[in-house]
Amino acid sequence: MVAMTPNQPGMPPKLPIPGVKNLIAVGSGKGGVGKTTVSVNLAVGLASLGHKTGLMDADVYGPNVPLMMGINRTPMAHGERIQPLEQYGVRLMSMGFLNPGDKPLVWRGPMLHSVIQQFLRGVDWGELDFLVIDLPPGTGDVALSLIQTAPITGAIVVTTPSDVSLEDARKAIHMFNQVKVPIIGIVENMSFLNCPHCNERIDVFSYGGGRRTAEQMQVHFLAELPLDPDFRVGGDTGRPAVLRKDKGAPFVDLARNTVTRAREAAMQEGPKIEITD
Amino acid sequence: MVAMTPNQPGMPPKLPIPGVKNLIAVGSGKGGVGKTTVSVNLAVGLASLGHKTGLMDADVYGPNVPLMMGINRTPMAHGERIQPLEQYGVRLMSMGFLNPGDKPLVWRGPMLHSVIQQFLRGVDWGELDFLVIDLPPGTGDVALSLIQTAPITGAIVVTTPSDVSLEDARKAIHMFNQVKVPIIGIVENMSFLNCPHCNERIDVFSYGGGRRTAEQMQVHFLAELPLDPDFRVGGDTGRPAVLRKDKGAPFVDLARNTVTRAREAAMQEGPKIEITD
Repeated sequence: MVAMTPNQPGMPPKLPIPGVKNLIAVGSGKGGVGKTTVSVNLAVGLASLGHKTGLMDADVYGPNVPLMMGINRTPMAHGERIQPLEQYGVRLMSMGFLNPGDKPLVWRGPMLHSVIQQFLRGVDWGELDFLVIDLPPGTGDVALSLIQTAPITGAIVVTTPSDVSLEDARKAIHMFNQVKVPIIGIVENMSFLNCPHCNERIDVFSYGGGRRTAEQMQVHFLAELPLDPDFRVGGDTGRPAVLRKDKGAPFVDLARNTVTRAREAAMQEGPKIEITD
Repeated sequence: MVAMTPNQPGMPPKLPIPGVKNLIAVGSGKGGVGKTTVSVNLAVGLASLGHKTGLMDADVYGPNVPLMMGINRTPMAHGERIQPLEQYGVRLMSMGFLNPGDKPLVWRGPMLHSVIQQFLRGVDWGELDFLVIDLPPGTGDVALSLIQTAPITGAIVVTTPSDVSLEDARKAIHMFNQVKVPIIGIVENMSFLNCPHCNERIDVFSYGGGRRTAEQMQVHFLAELPLDPDFRVGGDTGRPAVLRKDKGAPFVDLARNTVTRAREAAMQEGPKIEITD
């Protein structure tokens, strides 16, 4: 059973992805705020809670999911459909699997739109409770096309507490509002750092702006994630921090909150066409 | 007197920008690594060394230059040409001046290319020793079109020392190589943090990967900039760190190194057509 969101006037219908119950888009106004770190740890966290989960890396120019998930092989095709890879219980697709190495992708807009649609609908995702989509940063062409054509349950906006990042996060929230994608909440990443030497707290990128912005814009505040050198090591070595007993808790909480808010968002979406397979 | 770089086969000529002697593009593979922080401090640093300097913010979707330079007014037109704003001795143009506030820009590719060309050629830059261009992050459409059509003297690639950022930095270097733009050097930003409480050093995003990558890819290593909460405060309050007596030195060094390397890059560029006004 899948939900079809109502069409916007003048837009093509947001066709459901058969078998996929919830699409969670993870976006940011600005790059480098930890969008992929949040996507990866959220997906592995959802899987660890027993939900069938997929992760689609839509950041086609800078696909960091393969490195952060510690897997990079060429996916197999099965008939006309691409088989996702699987790591830590999460089904994965990324441009990094198709264009590995250091060569930049110099594709223009239309080709990107088509590859993104392939990732959404040409991949054999199977039955999924959650498909997490790691959007490209910003409010550009690829992000916009994707959120206009995919039946997204709700979006998470990642920001750091710095004003520069918050300025761009507000733009991203406006973009989701404009295309009527519900906001599941704001995640403040790199909130603070506890010095590994003296254990004193350092507000490297300021602090609290994510929560303040959530209040101003009347969206939920989902999580406050510390700036922890171990999270970066986890990303660089392909072992997400959520898997660590000593450090994983904030990400497991984030996954739990996301499940709750996604249910609410799905209920607020208004009239739906229920399709039973 | 301006230099015209030779055409690439099949590409339109890279017409000179009258009055502008050197174009320095500041790019990154990944967003959020401090590209705009480096651009702003480099431009103000060049001006403080007595060079006539401009700064063009080509990051049209996330234009952070107005906030970081502490200025946001609508520029005036003079005849058919837009007058740049000026702050700290640097002439400025940014999409943020034309689209202030939180509304995202939902323009598609072709409109962006045209606005970028307007910024390059429709702005009354006057006589400049250096025009610093803050590129959009990544190797996408807008960045590629710009570096293919502007007579860029050389490019600076900004990265953090984390593997994820370095992976994307290598892609950016390949992109510049492909379109024959000389690399002035790599800047490693957020290299390390000195704890403000105990003064011990913390390698938040790892350390040294920028220098290693420069060696591997046979490009210069320009600077190693600390992760300093004061730099972020400088950005958020519109007062670039290079202006501070106690903290500005690394950025002034970066400006000096850039002048030297830009001269070398201009000399290595091969045959030139000299045009005297």
